Amino acid sequence: MPLQIENETHANMANAIRALSMDAVQKANSGHPGMPMGMADVATVLFSKFLNFDPAWPTWPNRDRFVLSAGHGSMLIYSLLHLTGYERPTMQDLENFRQLHSPTAGHPEFGECPGVETTTGPLGQGLATSVGMAIAERLSNAEYGNNIVDHYTYVISGDGCLMEGVSQEAISLAGHLKLSKLIVLWDDNSISIDGSTDLSTSEDQAARFEAAGWHVQSVDGHDPEAIEVALGLARESDQPSMIACKTTIGFGAPNKQGTSGVHGAPLGDDEIAATREAIGWAHAPFVIPDDVMADWRAVGAAGAKKSAKWKSKFDSLDAAVKADFNRRQNKDLPAGFTAAINDYKAKLAANPVKVATRKASQMALEVINGVVPETIGGSADLTGSNLTKTSQTEGVSATNFTGRYMYYGIREFGMAAAMNGIALYSNHIPYGGTFLVFTDYARPAIRLAALMKQRAIYVMTHDSIGLGEDGPTHQPVEHVASLRAMPNLNVFRPCDVVETAECWALALEAKETPSVISLTRQNVPQLRVEYTEENLCAKGGYILQEATGGTPKVVLIGTGSEVELAVIARTALEADGIPTRVVSMPCTDLFDAQDAAYKAAVLPATAVKASIEAGTTYGWERYTGLDGVNIGMTTFGASAPAEELYEYFGITSDALLAAVREKL
Amino acid sequence: MPLQIENETHANMANAIRALSMDAVQKANSGHPGMPMGMADVATVLFSKFLNFDPAWPTWPNRDRFVLSAGHGSMLIYSLLHLTGYERPTMQDLENFRQLHSPTAGHPEFGECPGVETTTGPLGQGLATSVGMAIAERLSNAEYGNNIVDHYTYVISGDGCLMEGVSQEAISLAGHLKLSKLIVLWDDNSISIDGSTDLSTSEDQAARFEAAGWHVQSVDGHDPEAIEVALGLARESDQPSMIACKTTIGFGAPNKQGTSGVHGAPLGDDEIAATREAIGWAHAPFVIPDDVMADWRAVGAAGAKKSAKWKSKFDSLDAAVKADFNRRQNKDLPAGFTAAINDYKAKLAANPVKVATRKASQMALEVINGVVPETIGGSADLTGSNLTKTSQTEGVSATNFTGRYMYYGIREFGMAAAMNGIALYSNHIPYGGTFLVFTDYARPAIRLAALMKQRAIYVMTHDSIGLGEDGPTHQPVEHVASLRAMPNLNVFRPCDVVETAECWALALEAKETPSVISLTRQNVPQLRVEYTEENLCAKGGYILQEATGGTPKVVLIGTGSEVELAVIARTALEADGIPTRVVSMPCTDLFDAQDAAYKAAVLPATAVKASIEAGTTYGWERYTGLDGVNIGMTTFGASAPAEELYEYFGITSDALLAAVREKL
Repeated sequence: MPLQIENETHANMANAIRALSMDAVQKANSGHPGMPMGMADVATVLFSKFLNFDPAWPTWPNRDRFVLSAGHGSMLIYSLLHLTGYERPTMQDLENFRQLHSPTAGHPEFGECPGVETTTGPLGQGLATSVGMAIAERLSNAEYGNNIVDHYTYVISGDGCLMEGVSQEAISLAGHLKLSKLIVLWDDNSISIDGSTDLSTSEDQAARFEAAGWHVQSVDGHDPEAIEVALGLARESDQPSMIACKTTIGFGAPNKQGTSGVHGAPLGDDEIAATREAIGWAHAPFVIPDDVMADWRAVGAAGAKKSAKWKSKFDSLDAAVKADFNRRQNKDLPAGFTAAINDYKAKLAANPVKVATRKASQMALEVINGVVPETIGGSADLTGSNLTKTSQTEGVSATNFTGRYMYYGIREFGMAAAMNGIALYSNHIPYGGTFLVFTDYARPAIRLAALMKQRAIYVMTHDSIGLGEDGPTHQPVEHVASLRAMPNLNVFRPCDVVETAECWALALEAKETPSVISLTRQNVPQLRVEYTEENLCAKGGYILQEATGGTPKVVLIGTGSEVELAVIARTALEADGIPTRVVSMPCTDLFDAQDAAYKAAVLPATAVKASIEAGTTYGWERYTGLDGVNIGMTTFGASAPAEELYEYFGITSDALLAAVREKL
Repeated sequence: MPLQIENETHANMANAIRALSMDAVQKANSGHPGMPMGMADVATVLFSKFLNFDPAWPTWPNRDRFVLSAGHGSMLIYSLLHLTGYERPTMQDLENFRQLHSPTAGHPEFGECPGVETTTGPLGQGLATSVGMAIAERLSNAEYGNNIVDHYTYVISGDGCLMEGVSQEAISLAGHLKLSKLIVLWDDNSISIDGSTDLSTSEDQAARFEAAGWHVQSVDGHDPEAIEVALGLARESDQPSMIACKTTIGFGAPNKQGTSGVHGAPLGDDEIAATREAIGWAHAPFVIPDDVMADWRAVGAAGAKKSAKWKSKFDSLDAAVKADFNRRQNKDLPAGFTAAINDYKAKLAANPVKVATRKASQMALEVINGVVPETIGGSADLTGSNLTKTSQTEGVSATNFTGRYMYYGIREFGMAAAMNGIALYSNHIPYGGTFLVFTDYARPAIRLAALMKQRAIYVMTHDSIGLGEDGPTHQPVEHVASLRAMPNLNVFRPCDVVETAECWALALEAKETPSVISLTRQNVPQLRVEYTEENLCAKGGYILQEATGGTPKVVLIGTGSEVELAVIARTALEADGIPTRVVSMPCTDLFDAQDAAYKAAVLPATAVKASIEAGTTYGWERYTGLDGVNIGMTTFGASAPAEELYEYFGITSDALLAAVREKL
């Protein structure tokens, strides 16, 4: 194609994005037009010249991943998806930008719109999630070979993404692992919501990425040829690559471009008219001329051949490999999984052990990792404390992606975000550990896992004052409650080695729900000594020890390490002739999901109900009512040996007994 | 002093730290000996040659600040504080390392031990907090002049601190503001808990800091002369300064030094004996020979002269300036504060307005900033949305520290950590804004504020699905509940412009409790139309509208924007002849702190109690009991205009009415 025509074609294609973006934001009367207009040239080059994707098969496993980390510029991706021919968003969907039930949510939402690879909007996380995708790509490449998995992950990142701390964790990890197929396009527009980025940053981003081991280039983000050259070089690099794309935010809007006024508000009718004039776009809102649409649709259509070629390669694989690949994509567990867990439970019943539940977790993982080849473990530099490594899991490194264990470094948030990327990739099940108290660091990514319905499993040890001497900074108090409050997150706090195995099974079986497994540092006795094929934890709470006669006057509800205290208190109450039941409640989320009859049967209205948990009492009234007892923490912890802390904070069977007796 | 003697003196002083550290960890049978042993030389040079401090006056306002960001190495600071002559920790305290009621907690806890400037342990935060201290120093310098405030802030940081993302937010902000009196000593020991840092990082830290605008040097961390030279140069730099101190972790332990084995576990008796031999330390545990102790005490004693000199300068200040300085250090508000608030409330009563509570917050701040000169506002790049800026607050920049407004950039965690540093400094009251949903990003620092009892005020706007189109990533659901679960944090959710003013007053008056003020994007009517001198929000929940006859059959409890819905529902119920009370509950934390009689009077046991809040229902059973009604969210939100979302999620007065009627 002669250069002039090519340039004109490019301009029209890019202007189509600009027009759709400004018009959709205007119609919705909210949104961010500046970013899509500024990055339209870059995105057009990326999608038309480099990105391998098939709009007819959005989940084609070997597609390039595209992540719009600057998610507020959502009209950029919606425009691209529509123009290249995805089934959704339709033009109607674009007109319904930011409206109820439209796949064109204010920020791109995974699962709402095909082609959106991950939910973005909370800044920095798209970039950090893409690191997980790039890791998953390398892991899958090592396992399935170049014919089946070998592709790029492209990210568009804004200034905000790069100011968020998680971006540093992400680029540092990516550089360390030499994720050369990860390419970040930075929308270097020098504008944030408050105004010029000069207000708050003076960083040399190029030098920063180089310091983290990245290949760095800088281009005029409105020069399609320069962008193309840079992307070509980035793909050749043996390092992850960052291209600083110098752009004008709101490019094309003659009076507002280059200002924060175009960042997060509609342009207004006058400026939109002026923009149409300035960029030579005479078409009505939501109208794309046939030639421009044809050019864009051709880009999308080109993907069909590529995906078909891949499909034929995939079809020629060994049947067992194919079946396993598909099983993993479907998030099914291997056939032998339940049998292996039950086998293990039977062994425990035969030979009870007293271990910390973090150790119990490692024991369960030893079984799980033996039968579930797709688990990818890891820890944020607390491997020996979280006990997340098993005999099957060798470390992953830049030179070895056959491993199954990630040394995430002291990067809890980056770890959780990478786990999201790995989970979204669907070939692996990520689990990662740190201390429970540091869920606070990882919380924004845990929330995205819950929102995106991703099976990420957080192995959170040292789950109460029971961790002892490290003191209040390391002792969770409010964490279990604050995680229970999050929608679509299962928080498990198993009481012994058997419950730990059951909770692990539930976490793995929950295809659309992430799980926190809250585990003790200190030893706890095995309370489940009778083998049951049924996973008793599946209902969230159940009768662990029944009251004499079966009609309890008192129900003691415990979780984790405090179930033992409830059991001790029960013995004392029963000795006094008070029929007392112990309910173990490893997962309130699952218990809440049971029907009213089950809940009433387990926690009868007539009984005095008492909860005991070495965390805040906040939230326990749901199970005990207002006339019950709630033993727990109301302040932060302290630094001392664990046993002394339990005494000091009054989380003892004696305290439970005394409080219950007062109610009788 | 001849060089040889000086070197010997230094070695003995440093070895005193090593011995105390390894012996205390051994006695506690837990802790981290490796870091104090590795950084003993650096710390000895810093404390003996540079640090301005007075053990007899730990809060001397113009002292240099020393922050042990790598807080797990707490025996380093405890050793230094004891050796230089602070009243605590005593030698007995060192022997009681990590024991209940000892000031020598596992990690340094602010308020437990004089000389500990901030609680550290959660990695990265010491560094990020120190940026706030360095900002406060410059603000105070600009206000009081070089004679009164002009000092350095020194930080010892480990590999873990630099891997945490918040470190990037911190160094980027510090570089931008050219905080030249901030000096970070990086313990570059190449070891983390999991093993060599090669497992998880390959970053060029020097280049990274340079990219953020820092002055960088690299020294042998066991060469006292080199350390001294580097510190001297760092102090001269007009940029913040980072000194990479190449050290051997556990320096002196012949068989374990330089390995992760010495990071977080006692050395063991044999290795301790071998260390004594290797470093030539023949003294028993917890015994410091007189000459070494004398050398250290001389270091501490030198501070008295400096602080006295400062005191005389301070005494020569204008009486009003002195009084104001002391008032601020005592965290007292100006005399005119309450009158100004009441005046404002009276005006609102006279001329009711319907505004978003975020706007109400700005209106309150306009009053507050007019009478409280020590407020320092800011936002994480959402100034126009959070409405945190008022007419009195000019922006702070590298060339202007007379401002009162921080452009924190898109760094929520860094902002909250810096606010902790500003609050700890005690000359200013920091408030900072972002969207409520992004409290998740800032949460680890909010927790430290609560633990350290610091008056930081978080202005958290867009506090529910009421923010509308931005969608579920930006809509808080679990946040208010999860923050209420945190000890010593007041979460305010005012219902109108008057309550917003009252909640602001309470936040400012709470000397030892940080506050979250949760604010709407959308307009709400003024429900408090009668002037009261009393701050009705002070009790957390109160009767906003009484039931006809005074004995309610129904009590409707609302917070924030949903109080309006409760008021509408009350009208309907009263019309049906059902005596209905509306309780506004702007702060459950304060309500929980009331006596049982007050609580029972506001929420009588006999009434049907219903809560309505556009957040999770989790936790509301505490106020409604199990037989009440809880209207709220049980899932994530969606992207659509706010009014449609309220309908869609059933958070309406009709839904409330229907549910209540079912209970009657």
